Amino acid sequence: MPINRAASISVDRPVDVLADVPRGLAGVVVTDTELGDVRGREGFYHYRQYSAVDLAQACGFEEVWHLLAHGELPDEARRAAFTARTARLRRLPDDVRAALPAIAAATGPSGPLAGLRTALSLLGASLGFRPVYDIDAGRRRDDGLAATAAVPTLLTALYRIGQGLDPVEPRDDLGYAANYLYMLTGSEPDAARARAVERYLISTIDHGFNASTFTARVIASTGADVAACLVGAVGALSGPLHGGAPSRALDTLDAIGTPDRIDPWIRERVLAGDRIMGFGHPVYRTEDPRSRMLRGMAQEFGGPLVEFAVEVERRVEAILAELKPGRELHTNVEFYAGVVMELCGLPREMFTPTFAAARVVGWSANIMEQAEDSKIIRPAARYVGPVPPVAVPRASS
Amino acid sequence: MPINRAASISVDRPVDVLADVPRGLAGVVVTDTELGDVRGREGFYHYRQYSAVDLAQACGFEEVWHLLAHGELPDEARRAAFTARTARLRRLPDDVRAALPAIAAATGPSGPLAGLRTALSLLGASLGFRPVYDIDAGRRRDDGLAATAAVPTLLTALYRIGQGLDPVEPRDDLGYAANYLYMLTGSEPDAARARAVERYLISTIDHGFNASTFTARVIASTGADVAACLVGAVGALSGPLHGGAPSRALDTLDAIGTPDRIDPWIRERVLAGDRIMGFGHPVYRTEDPRSRMLRGMAQEFGGPLVEFAVEVERRVEAILAELKPGRELHTNVEFYAGVVMELCGLPREMFTPTFAAARVVGWSANIMEQAEDSKIIRPAARYVGPVPPVAVPRASS
Repeated sequence: MPINRAASISVDRPVDVLADVPRGLAGVVVTDTELGDVRGREGFYHYRQYSAVDLAQACGFEEVWHLLAHGELPDEARRAAFTARTARLRRLPDDVRAALPAIAAATGPSGPLAGLRTALSLLGASLGFRPVYDIDAGRRRDDGLAATAAVPTLLTALYRIGQGLDPVEPRDDLGYAANYLYMLTGSEPDAARARAVERYLISTIDHGFNASTFTARVIASTGADVAACLVGAVGALSGPLHGGAPSRALDTLDAIGTPDRIDPWIRERVLAGDRIMGFGHPVYRTEDPRSRMLRGMAQEFGGPLVEFAVEVERRVEAILAELKPGRELHTNVEFYAGVVMELCGLPREMFTPTFAAARVVGWSANIMEQAEDSKIIRPAARYVGPVPPVAVPRASS
Repeated sequence: MPINRAASISVDRPVDVLADVPRGLAGVVVTDTELGDVRGREGFYHYRQYSAVDLAQACGFEEVWHLLAHGELPDEARRAAFTARTARLRRLPDDVRAALPAIAAATGPSGPLAGLRTALSLLGASLGFRPVYDIDAGRRRDDGLAATAAVPTLLTALYRIGQGLDPVEPRDDLGYAANYLYMLTGSEPDAARARAVERYLISTIDHGFNASTFTARVIASTGADVAACLVGAVGALSGPLHGGAPSRALDTLDAIGTPDRIDPWIRERVLAGDRIMGFGHPVYRTEDPRSRMLRGMAQEFGGPLVEFAVEVERRVEAILAELKPGRELHTNVEFYAGVVMELCGLPREMFTPTFAAARVVGWSANIMEQAEDSKIIRPAARYVGPVPPVAVPRASS
C-alpha cells in the first residue's frame, strides 16, 4: 500500500521562532530510535536490545544484519533464507557492471569512497529505487537490502579495476565477510581471517547518531529514495572529521616506527596539543568497547605489529596520565581496527571502504526508521549579515 | 595555506545530555549565515543584503552567482572575468563525458536527478576535489564554481542522450541561462525566453535553510569534498517533501482541465483535506514573492495557459477563504514557475533539474560558509527500544 505523505495540507511549521541550541546540535535530540545507542560514560553500545560486542562475538554478519533490518535475530530457517537472498543480491545489474571501468578511471585518484558514492548512485537508479514516501515498508527494505548487498561487490570491483585486475564475481556459498575478502583478493580467505573481519564488520554496523547516519536520515526525511540517502551518507563518511578511517591509526604506528621512539614521539605530540590518530572519541569517556574487542582479536593473531601497537597504547595512556592528568583518552575503534585489517591482508586504502561495507547496514536501518516519520528535518539559520534590503546598485549588464 | 582542522584533540562535546526541541528541528538554529534569509511573515527573501526579487529584476545570473560566491556584486571588469571563467568551466572532462551514456542508460527511468547525482559525483572525483577542510577557501570556491558551471552541461547532455540525441557542446558566448536552453534544445533561444529563464534561475538560487541546503552543510561539516556535499543536496532535493517540483503544479492545471471544472475540482480537494500542488508554503504566511514575480513574467508572455492559471489561482483563494477562513494559502514558487518554464519550451521532466541548476549556486555558497566552521553537525537520538543489554540468544550458526 503506497503511502502518500504529501496528501494533506501542512501549515503547522513554526516560522520566525528561533531556538538556540549547542553548536553542531550536540546533544540535541532529532528523533526517537529503536535501533541502538551509545552510552559514552559506560563504554557500552548496543544494536536494538543487544550488546553490539556480544553480537559480534556470538553471531554471523547476516544474523545481525537481519536484526537491524527486520527487528529481530532470525531463527535458523529465517537465517538461511536471508543469507541466500542477500547472497543473490550481490550480483550487479549489467548496466552498472558495464559502467564500473569508467567510474574507476575517473574516481581512482579521489579514492574508493568517491567511487562507491558514484557507483551506488548509479545502482539505485538502475534498480529503479523510488522515493521512500511513495513505497511501502517492505519495498523500502528490499531497496536497502539490495543496495547493502551490492556494496562489497562495487567496492571490490572498483578496487580491482583500479589495480588493473578483473573483478571477481561474488560467490553465493560464502558469508558476507568471507565473500568480501574473496572478491577483493580472488582467493578464499582462511577461516580465522574471515571470522576476524566478520566480527569487525558486525561491530561497525551502527554507532549512535553519527554524522553519516544523520545525513542519511535528513535525506530520507525529504522522502528521497534509498540510494539518495546512502550516497549522502557515504559523502559524510568521507569527511576527515567523521572518523572511521582506521588507516590513520596505522599511519601513526608507521610514523613512530620503533619501540625506542614511542616516548619522544608521543611526548612531542601531546605537548604540542596535536591529535594522536587512533586515540580519543567524542562520546566515549572510557575505553571504546570496540577497541577492547579488536585488541583481543589482534592478540589472538599475535606478532610484532600487535606487540608494538599494544606498547604504543600503553605508553600513550601513561604519558597522557602524566602530562594531562584527568583527561580520559583511550584508543578508539580506528586503532586496533587498523591492526586487525592489516593482519587480515586488507590493503590500507580499503580500510575505510570496509567500514562503509558494514555501516551501510546501519544507514539502511536508519533510513527505514526515518521513513516511518512524515516530518521533514529542516532546522533554521540566523542571518547575521548587513540588514536588508539594500537597494541593488545599477546593474552593470 | 591548507587547514588541518583535525589537528587538535577535541573532547569538548557534551555526552548524555539530551535537549528536546521541536520535531524536525523546526526553528532550531544550526548556524549563523551571511548568505540570506526568508522572512515568512513579510513575504520577503534576500541574498546577502539584497532583495532576491530585485536582483532577479536588475541583474544577470553571473552577477548574482558572483554575489553569492564572492560576497559582493561585481563591477564590470569582474563581471566580465567571472563570466568568461565560468563559461570555460562548462566543458566536461573527457572521462566524465565518456561515462555519460552509461549513466544516462542506467539512470533514465529514475529521472534526471538520479542522473545528475551520479554524474556530479563522478565529476568531483574526476576534477580531483579534495576534502574542504584540507584546502584553503580559494580552492574550495574553485571547486564550487567548477561543479556549478558543469551542472547545466551534465543535465542537458544526460537529457539529450536519453532522447537519443547527441549532447550539444556549451557555448562560451552565451550567458548561463541562454546557454542552458541552447544546450537543451540545440538552438539559440530568443532573448525574451532566455531572460525569463534567467530571472527564474536567479530567484531560485537560495531560499533559507531548506532541507537540501542543510544536507549540503551537514556533509560539509564533516570536511568532505564539495561534490560529496552537492550530491547529498541533489538527493535531498529529489525527495517529494522537499518542494521545488514545478511540474506538479502544471499537473494540477492539467487535472482541472477547463475553466468550468475549476470550482468543483477545488472544492472537492479542499473538503477532502487534500493538498493542492502549487499552493501553500511552510514558511510564507503571505504571497510567495517568487510567485508574484513569476506571475508578472507569465502575464508578459500572455496566452490561454496563463489566463487559466490566473483564474485557478483566483478561484482557489476565493474557495479557501470561504471554506477555510483564516487559513493563509497562496500560490508557491512552483505554480507560476511551471507556467513560465512551459512557456519557455522546457520539457516538463526538466523543471526540477532546472531548479537544481540554479540552487547549486546556493548550495555551494552554503558549503563554503560551513567550511569556515570547524564544528561537525552531529545531533542525537533518544533510544526508546527494549532496555539493553538482553543476553544474545545462543547463536544459530
